[in-house]
Amino acid sequence: MSAPLEGITVLSIEQAISAPLCTRHLADLGARVIKVENPGIGDSTRHYDGVVRGMAAHFVWLNHGKESAELNLTDSADAEVFARLLTKADVLVSNLAPGALGRLGLDPADLLERYPQLIVVDISGYGRGGPLDHKRAYDLLVQAEGGSASITGLPGQPAKPGIPVADIGTALYAYSSVLAALYDRDRTGRGTVIPIAMLDVVAEMMGFALNAVLHGGEEPEPVGMGSPMIAPYGAYATKDGQTAVLGTTSDREWRRLAGDLLRRPDLVEDARYARNADRVARRAELDEILGAWCAARDLADIQRLADEAGIGNARLNSVRDLAEHPQLAQRHRWRQVGSPVGPVAALLPPALGRGWEVPEGRVPALGADTAAIRAEAAELELPDRADDSA
Amino acid sequence: MSAPLEGITVLSIEQAISAPLCTRHLADLGARVIKVENPGIGDSTRHYDGVVRGMAAHFVWLNHGKESAELNLTDSADAEVFARLLTKADVLVSNLAPGALGRLGLDPADLLERYPQLIVVDISGYGRGGPLDHKRAYDLLVQAEGGSASITGLPGQPAKPGIPVADIGTALYAYSSVLAALYDRDRTGRGTVIPIAMLDVVAEMMGFALNAVLHGGEEPEPVGMGSPMIAPYGAYATKDGQTAVLGTTSDREWRRLAGDLLRRPDLVEDARYARNADRVARRAELDEILGAWCAARDLADIQRLADEAGIGNARLNSVRDLAEHPQLAQRHRWRQVGSPVGPVAALLPPALGRGWEVPEGRVPALGADTAAIRAEAAELELPDRADDSA
Repeated sequence: MSAPLEGITVLSIEQAISAPLCTRHLADLGARVIKVENPGIGDSTRHYDGVVRGMAAHFVWLNHGKESAELNLTDSADAEVFARLLTKADVLVSNLAPGALGRLGLDPADLLERYPQLIVVDISGYGRGGPLDHKRAYDLLVQAEGGSASITGLPGQPAKPGIPVADIGTALYAYSSVLAALYDRDRTGRGTVIPIAMLDVVAEMMGFALNAVLHGGEEPEPVGMGSPMIAPYGAYATKDGQTAVLGTTSDREWRRLAGDLLRRPDLVEDARYARNADRVARRAELDEILGAWCAARDLADIQRLADEAGIGNARLNSVRDLAEHPQLAQRHRWRQVGSPVGPVAALLPPALGRGWEVPEGRVPALGADTAAIRAEAAELELPDRADDSA
Repeated sequence: MSAPLEGITVLSIEQAISAPLCTRHLADLGARVIKVENPGIGDSTRHYDGVVRGMAAHFVWLNHGKESAELNLTDSADAEVFARLLTKADVLVSNLAPGALGRLGLDPADLLERYPQLIVVDISGYGRGGPLDHKRAYDLLVQAEGGSASITGLPGQPAKPGIPVADIGTALYAYSSVLAALYDRDRTGRGTVIPIAMLDVVAEMMGFALNAVLHGGEEPEPVGMGSPMIAPYGAYATKDGQTAVLGTTSDREWRRLAGDLLRRPDLVEDARYARNADRVARRAELDEILGAWCAARDLADIQRLADEAGIGNARLNSVRDLAEHPQLAQRHRWRQVGSPVGPVAALLPPALGRGWEVPEGRVPALGADTAAIRAEAAELELPDRADDSA
């Protein structure tokens, strides 16, 4: 057993979700991650709430397995500590506000000249150039700009996806691009600069809807638990007070659903429902039929019958249902990670190769590793600044 | 300029979104991707619609830059073609239904014994073991099981996030795990098997909500465009018939919003709104105040004033607004890719290192490359099957 990124050092000037999730996954693969935090304050998510025995729900989720160094990068002595650390770093991740890296003397292109081995990931809301260049970007704002909220919710009532997909998507593109750059560096001997804009990430995830609008011209309308593109599909209340989720993705499945599950050969034969486009146009009628069928049965019976008919189905779960999901428990997906207040629950990373060791995580107290990291930096040579004095 | 994955060959037995988006991004990095499709039918998304000049919106989004080989893996001659291709493949990705790889004689662990260089990504809905082991899994179903829909929508009216986050998240974990495994293989000389379950991916993305429920006990309720955790935050109709999105993420920002933006020193001083928890409890009152303020102003004025006050803000965009977004156009994010019906628009990949060449993509017709790939396979030696005859 070994961890793929053993020996890799990541420095991260990070806040909130996108950069922290990226570097947490690098830590999950065995990289050493040094989280640089503002003295006395730290990552803003530390202060969101105190739900996890005094620690914040977001912070605990995103930061186990990292070291925390309190460094004030606007202070010249601390900036020098950071410059020394960069000499042996493989990766620098940042999601500071637009222009902030440059103001700290850490412009990504300059860094790469000074530290040619370095992989610099520069996360922003909207990228360089364009009318939104310097705008603040939070998950909800980028999801609004990116059209993601317009295809979520109910007709005329858009909603923000509960999962912060702009932040998390950005984290995952940042994470994968670091891995691609490490692989590339083994061949070229050079690091690189990787700019990532949250809007570009949302636009990528909207690819199907963009194609529909660009070519077909039709704006997809949100339909709650359903899909604007297929019908019937949705969530239906059951006799025992639960909610079943089921539907069809093709004409063939519709015939199975109507014939084998609902036992309604009349529907199978009904030309008004034969094709998906017909069913989308008559979504309300089909929702009523499925709704009445589910309302007369308990969830367990619905799911058994749907399985037998080869119709995909699920239970609409709350967050607590997920926390207690037997599919996570029986597959041993939960573990404990360390923290300043003792062990707390965390999930294993979602994608692990067989034979990859998962490091024991630890949620760092603010500045827990500052002294050790300062001492370590003092032993490192500052980089050659010849090009600066030229 | 070069592409990081030049020289890497990926075989993919893929359908729908998760595996296809994973391999499209591998192609974006220069890998050769051979998409294996059922003769005459192919990837089911080919038939979703014909919106892109006869091609489907989903298919075009997810498949440019790949080759298509029609192979019937239940036919022994075609299975042998596939076995020959595996001898020089670096990666095999599959999102077949549970157990299907095994029934094709392609059990991941066996494959790794036969092809020790191979990285096998085995995507499933719910993983091996547990009560949902063999259940069908579509994006909506896994989002329902995973609690993601329960924190999206309106109180009592859960909704599916429009972006298929279970599929896309799984694609991105598959993609990054391939890159980690390639990097690892350079050191160990060995491939690996990477099982990825969509439910585990959704659970990871629900980390903040899981922590809140596990420790605090409170179930987050969806509040449309707002956040259950902070207030005020939301979407408000403007005088000129548009929708502004804005709000606060901290007590300090609230004082700026109330004082500098709304010009309401009385609200800044009002103890009933001083802390976020207070404001969450009085969300409706604050939404009314912000709603009235926005209703009296045009969007451009609202955004200018919010920028001046240092308050994050956005426009609630439709998909068409995103397609025509100046932030994408002015930053040259659109390009053309080839297809059987001529060039079609596509976005550049969201994360590219400087100096990485983006291959020209092409959307393959079903089986466009079958003949060439069969000829190529005929030149390859079958692997040593000694262990099979033992």
